[in-house]
Amino acid sequence: MKITIIGCYSAMPKIGNNLSSQIIEIQNEIFLVDCGEGTQVGLRKNKIKFSRIRHIFISHLHGDHYFGLIGLISTFSLLNRSADLHVYGPLGIKELIINQIKASGSWTKYKLIFHELSSNKSQLIFQSDFIEVSTIPLSHRIYTNGFLFKEVNLPLALNREAIDKNDVSIAYSNKIKQGFDVVNEKGLVIDNSELTLAGKVAKSYAYCSDTEYDESIVKLVNNCDALYHESTFLEKHVKLSKTTKHSTAKQAGKIAKLSNTKLLILGHYSSRYESIEMFKIEAKTEFENVILAEDSKIIEI
Amino acid sequence: MKITIIGCYSAMPKIGNNLSSQIIEIQNEIFLVDCGEGTQVGLRKNKIKFSRIRHIFISHLHGDHYFGLIGLISTFSLLNRSADLHVYGPLGIKELIINQIKASGSWTKYKLIFHELSSNKSQLIFQSDFIEVSTIPLSHRIYTNGFLFKEVNLPLALNREAIDKNDVSIAYSNKIKQGFDVVNEKGLVIDNSELTLAGKVAKSYAYCSDTEYDESIVKLVNNCDALYHESTFLEKHVKLSKTTKHSTAKQAGKIAKLSNTKLLILGHYSSRYESIEMFKIEAKTEFENVILAEDSKIIEI
Repeated sequence: MKITIIGCYSAMPKIGNNLSSQIIEIQNEIFLVDCGEGTQVGLRKNKIKFSRIRHIFISHLHGDHYFGLIGLISTFSLLNRSADLHVYGPLGIKELIINQIKASGSWTKYKLIFHELSSNKSQLIFQSDFIEVSTIPLSHRIYTNGFLFKEVNLPLALNREAIDKNDVSIAYSNKIKQGFDVVNEKGLVIDNSELTLAGKVAKSYAYCSDTEYDESIVKLVNNCDALYHESTFLEKHVKLSKTTKHSTAKQAGKIAKLSNTKLLILGHYSSRYESIEMFKIEAKTEFENVILAEDSKIIEI
Repeated sequence: MKITIIGCYSAMPKIGNNLSSQIIEIQNEIFLVDCGEGTQVGLRKNKIKFSRIRHIFISHLHGDHYFGLIGLISTFSLLNRSADLHVYGPLGIKELIINQIKASGSWTKYKLIFHELSSNKSQLIFQSDFIEVSTIPLSHRIYTNGFLFKEVNLPLALNREAIDKNDVSIAYSNKIKQGFDVVNEKGLVIDNSELTLAGKVAKSYAYCSDTEYDESIVKLVNNCDALYHESTFLEKHVKLSKTTKHSTAKQAGKIAKLSNTKLLILGHYSSRYESIEMFKIEAKTEFENVILAEDSKIIEI
């Protein structure tokens, strides 16, 4: 699993400060999460192939998380995209986008499929052979979801030596990869664990932006391999975080600790701070393994 | 009159290629014309003070000319703007912008005033003591206007020596600046031209993007000091210019010649071309005084 930070600043774009957007790469599929103004240029800077993006997840309808979406959709059209595009976002997003397409008189030649969200409970919204994505309802000023990306049913790696030794036919390879026990040429049942290599462990990544401090998300992101949690403010602005329904770095650290994640990624920094180093220092008072999101940073999980 | 090119490329933003947007500075007022995605960052790069922008003109509702508007409006809010903002654009622009503000739950604290346009005839849409702006109806795939910026009623410069010599009271200064003849202390009428300096000549600038080749605009932009005319294509793509209702550089040159402008500024280049030099060469086959718009170029008229 690989995360590319396209942008990680809040509120407004500045020279060199991109707004919220990430590419999540899992099992050869890439997902775009949030799409602030300027995201399409950020994607180019990070050499992300536009044609590979088939699913876009929008957390909420504050501009710094979605004003770049209509431009990206239009650019896909100009590039003669033919593949379907799925957009997952709050109820209302379809009308906002469609009305702009309508005004331009330029309908997309590819199929644009909206999955509008309005539930306050976690929902499974995407499922493929090896990936599941579900919502993480967040507590912000308007309806907002985080997203949990999970690898599932990963194919097991074959232990070729053991397969030969146990006289198992190679015709069973797919069955074995899927975890089944099989019968060998002598008619004996061979346990799957004897025929496969330990190793590939399904990973999970939780994206939580924007949200106030809210322990109710802990049960949803529990034991995830990495947690991106917004940290708009430092502790000296904790009051402001309350009124704007954002979090501080220390609060992000608390959620990381409670949810037993392996790695906390901070981001969505207010641009009022000259340096982002203090976010790490403050989060570390609660949770040790912290890294700072930075534009164009790649994080392997 | 000073024009700052914020962006001058068509269709989609790329690294280092900004979309249509210009700042027109006249008599201490600044106007923003068109506002593609990324314009707010372009304005910062060109050190344009956001608070000085009070009037924004949008030519048409293709994304490369206005997708950056909602972001700019939101940023003005975040910066606690209090001054009114006037937006001039095609009928429908108000609903598109207001619906996005509504979805974000963040109303502007400043007054946002829309002037929606739907006439196919030229209209005077802005008027102050020294400036007039009128529309230039253009022929494109959707409803589109160019804009003509004109200095008017410029105050005349006093010829202090002549005023003394003719025994004219200094109390008449304002009258003289406005062009009136006055009576001197001996009771004689003194002609205004004797009391003022020749010099300040009212300038005019026509912005025409996007449009197919259309001679009907000539009478509207006639004798302007500078004409920005779109040149999306080179002559080898003249057929494409017809089907997409855009112009070639040579066609822009023809309009410049017919309208007797002093200076032709080319822009709105398709990004299919590796260099923009050919646009100048092709336009010059029709009209001599051509310059190429380039991002961040400043043009004094």
